[in-house]
Amino acid sequence: MLLRMSNLFVRTLREVPADAELPGHRALLRAGYVRPAGSGVHSWLPLGYRVLRNVERIIREEMDAMGAQEVHFPALLPREPYERSGRWDDYGDNLFRLKDRRGNDHLLAPTHEEMFTLLVKDLYGSYRDLPLSIYQIQTKYRDEARPRAGLLRSREFLMKDSYSFDVDDAGLEASYQAHRAAYVRTFDRLRLDYVVVSAMSGAMGGSGSEEFLCPTPVGEDTYVRSPGGYAANAEAVVTPVPEPVPYDDVPEAHVEDTPDTPTIETLVAFANEHFPRPDRAWDAADTLKNVVVMVHHPDGTHEPLVIGVPGDRDVDPRRLAAQLEPSEVAPFTDEDFERDPGLTKGYLGPQVLGKGSATGIRYLVDPRIVEGTRWVTGANEHGHHVFDLVCGRDFTPDGTIEAAEVRDGDPAPDGSGPLELARGIEIGHIFQLGRKYAEALDLQVQDEHGELVTVTMGSYGIGVSRAVAAIAETTVDDLGLCWPRVVAPADVHLVVAGKSDDIVAGAERLTAELVDAGVRVLLDDRSKERPGVKFKDAELIGVPTIVVVGRGLAEGTIEVKDRRTGAREDVALADAVEHLRRLTMTG
Amino acid sequence: MLLRMSNLFVRTLREVPADAELPGHRALLRAGYVRPAGSGVHSWLPLGYRVLRNVERIIREEMDAMGAQEVHFPALLPREPYERSGRWDDYGDNLFRLKDRRGNDHLLAPTHEEMFTLLVKDLYGSYRDLPLSIYQIQTKYRDEARPRAGLLRSREFLMKDSYSFDVDDAGLEASYQAHRAAYVRTFDRLRLDYVVVSAMSGAMGGSGSEEFLCPTPVGEDTYVRSPGGYAANAEAVVTPVPEPVPYDDVPEAHVEDTPDTPTIETLVAFANEHFPRPDRAWDAADTLKNVVVMVHHPDGTHEPLVIGVPGDRDVDPRRLAAQLEPSEVAPFTDEDFERDPGLTKGYLGPQVLGKGSATGIRYLVDPRIVEGTRWVTGANEHGHHVFDLVCGRDFTPDGTIEAAEVRDGDPAPDGSGPLELARGIEIGHIFQLGRKYAEALDLQVQDEHGELVTVTMGSYGIGVSRAVAAIAETTVDDLGLCWPRVVAPADVHLVVAGKSDDIVAGAERLTAELVDAGVRVLLDDRSKERPGVKFKDAELIGVPTIVVVGRGLAEGTIEVKDRRTGAREDVALADAVEHLRRLTMTG
Repeated sequence: MLLRMSNLFVRTLREVPADAELPGHRALLRAGYVRPAGSGVHSWLPLGYRVLRNVERIIREEMDAMGAQEVHFPALLPREPYERSGRWDDYGDNLFRLKDRRGNDHLLAPTHEEMFTLLVKDLYGSYRDLPLSIYQIQTKYRDEARPRAGLLRSREFLMKDSYSFDVDDAGLEASYQAHRAAYVRTFDRLRLDYVVVSAMSGAMGGSGSEEFLCPTPVGEDTYVRSPGGYAANAEAVVTPVPEPVPYDDVPEAHVEDTPDTPTIETLVAFANEHFPRPDRAWDAADTLKNVVVMVHHPDGTHEPLVIGVPGDRDVDPRRLAAQLEPSEVAPFTDEDFERDPGLTKGYLGPQVLGKGSATGIRYLVDPRIVEGTRWVTGANEHGHHVFDLVCGRDFTPDGTIEAAEVRDGDPAPDGSGPLELARGIEIGHIFQLGRKYAEALDLQVQDEHGELVTVTMGSYGIGVSRAVAAIAETTVDDLGLCWPRVVAPADVHLVVAGKSDDIVAGAERLTAELVDAGVRVLLDDRSKERPGVKFKDAELIGVPTIVVVGRGLAEGTIEVKDRRTGAREDVALADAVEHLRRLTMTG
Repeated sequence: MLLRMSNLFVRTLREVPADAELPGHRALLRAGYVRPAGSGVHSWLPLGYRVLRNVERIIREEMDAMGAQEVHFPALLPREPYERSGRWDDYGDNLFRLKDRRGNDHLLAPTHEEMFTLLVKDLYGSYRDLPLSIYQIQTKYRDEARPRAGLLRSREFLMKDSYSFDVDDAGLEASYQAHRAAYVRTFDRLRLDYVVVSAMSGAMGGSGSEEFLCPTPVGEDTYVRSPGGYAANAEAVVTPVPEPVPYDDVPEAHVEDTPDTPTIETLVAFANEHFPRPDRAWDAADTLKNVVVMVHHPDGTHEPLVIGVPGDRDVDPRRLAAQLEPSEVAPFTDEDFERDPGLTKGYLGPQVLGKGSATGIRYLVDPRIVEGTRWVTGANEHGHHVFDLVCGRDFTPDGTIEAAEVRDGDPAPDGSGPLELARGIEIGHIFQLGRKYAEALDLQVQDEHGELVTVTMGSYGIGVSRAVAAIAETTVDDLGLCWPRVVAPADVHLVVAGKSDDIVAGAERLTAELVDAGVRVLLDDRSKERPGVKFKDAELIGVPTIVVVGRGLAEGTIEVKDRRTGAREDVALADAVEHLRRLTMTG
């Protein structure tokens, strides 16, 4: 394979595009791998598309190797199957919907659970046909609320999605583990670092689910790990529930005048000044913060919801959103407060909250707020708070919700030690879907006794274009991109560093020999560019081995440079092909 | 590569699906290559997807070999570029349009002229950058008025579209010829028969254009060929224009009472009975048939149009539609006649037609209706016709239109002899677009003098999924599919014809050796199926070589059968691998 910079459809840019935030994405744009093509969509230029196809090939090989079979569905689908599964509504604004010329409803599929279920129902009818794993590598659509300019969160993206079908839970577990092992091999081959964490299953439904996250500070997901091996997406972290606390000695709740204390900080300071504790100072953890939001349901209705958390913690919007999916969370506006005069902004307290209360507003609390805990909290009157309000005595929440932020040092739910937080990019997601789709779409097979049983399913995704972005973000350096060889657009970036006939002819000859030896070469044969420009471009483009054919040629040597380490060595021209071929083979 | 029928995701069907009309499509369904997934869309099962990817690979290799570079655009695009080119409106109902969550207009791209133009404008600015050919292999969308169940006319389909960019007409011609040669190589490699015919350029705009049609009676396109080498899509056939005819001797036009003659046949019969010609009998070619239609323009307006053709020919709806694109043609209804009382149904004549006439209705005639020709035609009065109406003396059309049917034996426009009609499937289309898109989107480069010149473009398409359908339709036989090896899902379909341990073990051993030798094997290892069922399935699935491992094994032989010819031979087991490997290599 040979690409020539003299006619390659690419332009490297010296300027950093203003709207590109992430270093890898900036480098992809500067090196001419991708171009924006609209809000949240982009086009692949030749170098970028080669990387994408390399990633796709490795994913396909590993899916085939585990015995999954490749199929391909349309992206444009009729409404009906998604209506039956509930996802036509549940996906809310995230789903691209359209009508055809006859006025029939269609969608652009975000994933294909329904269609795979129906296809298996169409073809198979017996337990003997199972287990089955089928997959596709396909363009997916999602009308993101906040698409990013890069490849990490696009409205159109390439995804590998596979689905397993089994007669029983043990079969599903085996299919799930087979996919998990295939994902490990895939990401290992892609040279992508990853952690496997417990995950929420979101709008997909289902039970057990894990994510493969690529650790990087630019990742959108936060995850936790403990020394003892617990790992979870922050969205999925379960708070250990404390034991109930005896409260016989707690005095009756009493409302106090606390002027100008609309925040936790002002309240704690005021309490320490005017109502000091005998044992220690008040702190934020003694207060109960009640946060009101508006929840919009897929059916178009909305309702207020109040979340109570210890005052030293914030509500984490992503954890809250994950709990409420497919409903969406919106801020509670001043107009909303006007419509709900029972709620006193800044002084909200549980006495007027809950399904059975005066307001009738649903009230969910952090799992740490157990029976007997005592709190300083709003008295539902401007400038007033209530002290010694005891959970289970003075108020009873409607339930608990995992919405409080997770913090470094929080205990792991399995007792394996303190949690540490980090960020990552979600590159893979594996799910035990269970029977949700099979039930909705009536996928049953006969078991060995001739009885109809509902099939149980798994669903497994890898973001193909997102994997390209994750590799770029985790390998980029100050000079530019820095591809692992297995996905790089070429093995060798050969720079013609000189205009003499000898150098040009020598570079062309070496290139021809390399190509014959199976080495993929990107030849910078531009006659008008200075060597300095070519070197900078080579470093920006990030092919793993840079070869310079220049002045050394007179003494029979070329320079070979490792893009990542920067290590250079002179290699005798006579040995060059074998040397480079060996580099290529060893990755 | 090894596929096992025992776990392959496939079901062969004995019944012919009721809605499948074409033999190849019926076989694709029966053999489990594709399944319908909605109106005008389908899913690919593992066998079908392998064929599709083989076709895709060959197209990609030939595009790369000609120096075209692969890129990839989104299918979901913003309205704006298509607004600027006019195609947002011109595509009418054929375009899938949708809004995103912010209410912005988007479309699912039918082709990508606009985006390619903008990308080149984005990256390039000098004549030195050109020529350039770039392409993609991408899912395309078209909201077909009459989608067919098969792969020939789908609403979602896979297409290779490429675009050339040149500074001048000579460059465009060279790029066009390079694509033409690459298409010839591609279709040759795909073993697809084709004819190259002159074509209309349709809504794409532009001038010169040719189609690659695969000849088959099930094709949707009609084309013509002459002994002297003229070849054109029937839509693009140009009628030779006769010389004007002297008409000094023609008597004045005279209206006659012709009761109950609303059709050409009744009129000719009546004329021969009541107004016989002295020299010969009247025939249909002496009459002028005026057909009225309603034309719907992309801007939402509509207008009546009357087409005059010699009475021995019908108006060809496809030729008419091709001439009027992007406007669409609808029947002229009884209600339309009521609204236009100037038009007398069945007795329409040119005296009241034309922009300057009483009705003001546009009147276009077949090119054969030249000055001096005399006609029997409607007198715009029920039961009356006019005789000796002379074109250029008694009426003047607004212009001519190529809408009359083309018939076997019509003269070729280049004088190369009588035309012969045939049908074919359009598998490729190459166009000299010219400067339409470059002008609309302002794509200019500096020429060698530093002057800005508008780039000239070509556009070139191959229907990838349609090529699969064309191969199926032109190779299917009574037994089923019959793939050329180069696109077949496997080289060898190995049937285990027996249940004895020796036969099963022998078949497995031979399979392993074949796979090691690089032969792609589909092994029918199903233990519950009788040999007869397996043979029928093998013939239906259509892998080019069928190998039977059965009773002969005891004598050390296997049977090798050519799927197409049906020829069988016994081959010694010891020679089997080499024999089959050689078959595979020779195609």
